[in-house]
Amino acid sequence: MLGGWSMTSAENRIADMAQQARAAAAELARVEPAQTAKALRAAASAVRGGASAILAANDEDLARAGKLSAAMQDRLRLDAARVENIAAALEAVAALPTPLGDVIDTRTRPNGLRLDRIRIPIGVVGIIYESRPNVTADAGALCLRSGNAVILRGGSEAQASNRALHQAMRTGLSSAGLPEAAIQLVDDPDRALVSAMLRAAGGIDLIVPRGGKSLVAAVQADARVPVLAHLDGNNHVYVHRAADPAMAEAIVIDAKLRRTGVCGAMETLLIDADYPAAIPLVEGLLERGCELRGDGRAQALDPRIRPAAAEDWGTEYLEAICAVAIVDGLDAALAHIAAHGSGHTDAIVTADAAAAERFLAEVDSAIVLHNASTQFADGGEFGLGAEIGIATGRLHARGPVALEGLTTYKWAGRGSGQVRG
Amino acid sequence: MLGGWSMTSAENRIADMAQQARAAAAELARVEPAQTAKALRAAASAVRGGASAILAANDEDLARAGKLSAAMQDRLRLDAARVENIAAALEAVAALPTPLGDVIDTRTRPNGLRLDRIRIPIGVVGIIYESRPNVTADAGALCLRSGNAVILRGGSEAQASNRALHQAMRTGLSSAGLPEAAIQLVDDPDRALVSAMLRAAGGIDLIVPRGGKSLVAAVQADARVPVLAHLDGNNHVYVHRAADPAMAEAIVIDAKLRRTGVCGAMETLLIDADYPAAIPLVEGLLERGCELRGDGRAQALDPRIRPAAAEDWGTEYLEAICAVAIVDGLDAALAHIAAHGSGHTDAIVTADAAAAERFLAEVDSAIVLHNASTQFADGGEFGLGAEIGIATGRLHARGPVALEGLTTYKWAGRGSGQVRG
Repeated sequence: MLGGWSMTSAENRIADMAQQARAAAAELARVEPAQTAKALRAAASAVRGGASAILAANDEDLARAGKLSAAMQDRLRLDAARVENIAAALEAVAALPTPLGDVIDTRTRPNGLRLDRIRIPIGVVGIIYESRPNVTADAGALCLRSGNAVILRGGSEAQASNRALHQAMRTGLSSAGLPEAAIQLVDDPDRALVSAMLRAAGGIDLIVPRGGKSLVAAVQADARVPVLAHLDGNNHVYVHRAADPAMAEAIVIDAKLRRTGVCGAMETLLIDADYPAAIPLVEGLLERGCELRGDGRAQALDPRIRPAAAEDWGTEYLEAICAVAIVDGLDAALAHIAAHGSGHTDAIVTADAAAAERFLAEVDSAIVLHNASTQFADGGEFGLGAEIGIATGRLHARGPVALEGLTTYKWAGRGSGQVRG
Repeated sequence: MLGGWSMTSAENRIADMAQQARAAAAELARVEPAQTAKALRAAASAVRGGASAILAANDEDLARAGKLSAAMQDRLRLDAARVENIAAALEAVAALPTPLGDVIDTRTRPNGLRLDRIRIPIGVVGIIYESRPNVTADAGALCLRSGNAVILRGGSEAQASNRALHQAMRTGLSSAGLPEAAIQLVDDPDRALVSAMLRAAGGIDLIVPRGGKSLVAAVQADARVPVLAHLDGNNHVYVHRAADPAMAEAIVIDAKLRRTGVCGAMETLLIDADYPAAIPLVEGLLERGCELRGDGRAQALDPRIRPAAAEDWGTEYLEAICAVAIVDGLDAALAHIAAHGSGHTDAIVTADAAAAERFLAEVDSAIVLHNASTQFADGGEFGLGAEIGIATGRLHARGPVALEGLTTYKWAGRGSGQVRG
């Protein structure tokens, strides 16, 4: 419930923004998808045309970023290439087909009443993110293309960059005749505004946190609004005894080392005790500079493998470190994943179809893979287009969330005077 | 997160139940749907065979129910017919086809990776309900048939009845070789156990409150677990100027008076200022004993119409009372519903197809109807089978929620050694 005498000024400000967003969402529900595409293409031009102003704003942010870690400064930093990537990403989202208006199912009842279930926007989405300014454009674009109004709350360290990018989005909206309140930016660093967003049930329909584990956990702990969250990706690759060694090595090296900082990276390698080529497998990782932390039997494979502590089995390293356990068969692998996995992405490598099907059926993760790298956990790789995130929860949307995950449905019934009587 | 030194004993008890439920859910994920059907048919026999014990337990509850309202006592009361209805309902759910294993979509990527999106159970569902003992069987059956483990928490006034019905459910489970922990009952009246359920994030995946508005609102306010909630159904029927008078009268009388206590009942009647047969329409309701509360222009139709107060436009009466407003055309009707509706079910009566399509598109409710009674808002009438409730939220499931709404999905990918490289 919004409104009421007991609201703080932060709550009132968010309530006002949510009210404007709701009105904008009602307008968006009436426009053709071509209009949101047009707005995003215009926003892309505004980003390109305003590149120098965007970079100048980013310099302002960087000048204040002295105390941030090098990694955070890199996430914050824009350059000509990154600005062009932002513009290109806007055009890519503009080109995505929208699921809006799709009839999910249709049924005509014996009494003649026809019922259609139709995809519609969720309404008002709140995005809470950290220092990456590109999220302002990416997330704004995905919400708009799926017909939603969005309230963006980026990190205060990126305030000037976010304002400049938000201005380009507003230019795109107005040049397509769409309400500027369809994409709003909370550009005040006051954290009370974040809390107010998390509590704006009825005003904001869905919160999507984009950032590190601590941000997401904090959002989940405080939110009164439904949250589409992605916590950690503690992903496993299980090399079954019937795995082809060349395939296993290629998948394991890709899953761990292609990019170590992505949520789809393998963090624990499970090697079947009966897998005949375990030594070359671990050597392939070690020789590429990957630190391995193993259980007793894994350590016996190579002296460079360090002992794993209990917490290693639950750690998302996001760097060139991997836990390694030797497991006695499929059941032990399933049990290890059930005990330590985070429900994100887990893979089995095997030539044994029955073992693969059991793994796919029984591993309770958003994404389960047979003979493929966990690094495919990505909306683009799934053919969904850009993603707003990878959901590890169990409700509404799971795995890579793109446009469809930002929609809901309504039931539309067409009758000819039917009564229940 | 469950576990940890800081948990109360109530939290520990729920955590233990949730852990057993999780293990049971893992077993359910491996059985054929025929097994849950078998368990429900066996439970139906156990209900019939144990009818006298169930009725004796219900007498115990009724003996302690002296201070309850007559309405609550009626909801609590079982008799031979109601027990038979419970058994028949279990058999009906057993006969429902399950969506489990359905492939929602399938795609093969250019690299040959095949991705299937597959329906699976949510996992562990918590049901919090009031004095109706039949919910123990109905909700337990829907959760089991959709492959979920369930933790049931009924009203303390129905404790003995719920125990007896739960015993029949357990008999059904064990006779089908399914784990009894698939359907657990919290049969301790301590309210701290309800709070513990609402906070058991990670242990319970979804909470479904079944009961009055105050119960649902309290659950929504405290829950840390996602809630599939149905608040009020402040439903409108808009009689457009181009409505057929006979059809309008039949739909309005059915929507309001067929059953006044159901959530699909009409609570506000909107009559177009240009509708020519307004007087017989309101007389049809008045003559059937329905109290009408109208705005100034509505009162002018008949002296028996009382003045409506501001709160009447937002009231779910659930009795033979109806608010009536005269509106100046479709836009005014849409504005009234946007301002006062509860997003449940709203209907237009008109022979004007364009007006109907605008109403269906622009009314932002879970169910929108053209030329049909709002009392069709029911899972059975939608052909979905028994319903766990009607969701008025915007995430996951909307409108009547039956088996599909109690499922989620996973992505299963089948490759031949694909790496991202």
